[in-house]
Amino acid sequence: MMKKLVDRLLNDAVVINNSIVKVDHFINHQLDTKLIDEIGEAFSDEFPQTTKILTIESSGIAYGVSTALHLNYVPVVFARKEKSSIISDKVYHSEAFSFTKQKTSTITVSKDFLSKDDKVLIIDDFLATGSALKALVAICKQAGATVEGIGIVIEKSFLNARDLFKEEDFKILSLANITEIKNNTLTIKKDQ
Amino acid sequence: MMKKLVDRLLNDAVVINNSIVKVDHFINHQLDTKLIDEIGEAFSDEFPQTTKILTIESSGIAYGVSTALHLNYVPVVFARKEKSSIISDKVYHSEAFSFTKQKTSTITVSKDFLSKDDKVLIIDDFLATGSALKALVAICKQAGATVEGIGIVIEKSFLNARDLFKEEDFKILSLANITEIKNNTLTIKKDQ
Repeated sequence: MMKKLVDRLLNDAVVINNSIVKVDHFINHQLDTKLIDEIGEAFSDEFPQTTKILTIESSGIAYGVSTALHLNYVPVVFARKEKSSIISDKVYHSEAFSFTKQKTSTITVSKDFLSKDDKVLIIDDFLATGSALKALVAICKQAGATVEGIGIVIEKSFLNARDLFKEEDFKILSLANITEIKNNTLTIKKDQ
Repeated sequence: MMKKLVDRLLNDAVVINNSIVKVDHFINHQLDTKLIDEIGEAFSDEFPQTTKILTIESSGIAYGVSTALHLNYVPVVFARKEKSSIISDKVYHSEAFSFTKQKTSTITVSKDFLSKDDKVLIIDDFLATGSALKALVAICKQAGATVEGIGIVIEKSFLNARDLFKEEDFKILSLANITEIKNNTLTIKKDQ
């Protein structure tokens, strides 16, 4: 965990309901760029073998870039969320369901930008149901790339997304782990 | 202009037609993070008075963040493109037409994140018809914020977007200015 992030969440996150917190004043609409820089540093420390970062638009991009700046400028690829189901054969693709938005998107990455030579660090701002992460992992597998690890800013572990990946041998690092949201209050795991 | 970016465009950009170039291998799908860092530094040098950066999802975010890291960690706000026309009264909003995608979106920014006290540097990856930039400027005006300047990675000046802003007193800095695309070839202005 990252103490500064955890303290910020405990002080500033707004509970919307028992599964959703609003953090758009520092994580995903207005961005606290000092915090984002430190988050990038934390991910880079944990996964130094990374040769490419994969993230997903829009909220993952800031964290992907800040991590790359601490990893000797590895390239960042951000997956796109396509509304259309017309998918060209030039992209890797997988479906993901957004719990917050209650809709399914097709996640795509150009075949030009992922290959079997890549050691990929996947980065996202939230791990909730794990649907988007599962799509990103599937895309790495389609490319034959190695998933070096997963870096998540905020995990909602009460949704048990890690169960989807228990057969995998990569490490999932989350910097803040919300174990419960109840009565307008977050519970965050103190050590991991 | 930024020589490294101009050289990269002349060497690597793929001409799609007489108004569109594809740069998704280093600018807006896979990201060259060293170049992005240097672009951020160039914008920061030009607009040191900035207190907040405003950009737009998705492709602007990387450039907004890299600029903020060179401006003593000013906050970045990224505007959202909403498909829905149902807009809450909690956001500033304006319409923009995407030439590349041939569709209109409503651009929104939460009223919590822009105010009359902000000196805003607006950043985007492309200046084409100027529709998105006009929406971002309109949102700053709604908030009463001062537009400190505009930083554009790649301008297509043959589309004359600057004409939309000739009454304004802010400076528009573009790091590469494409003056013509013809017969599969870019012409880029050598000095500005």
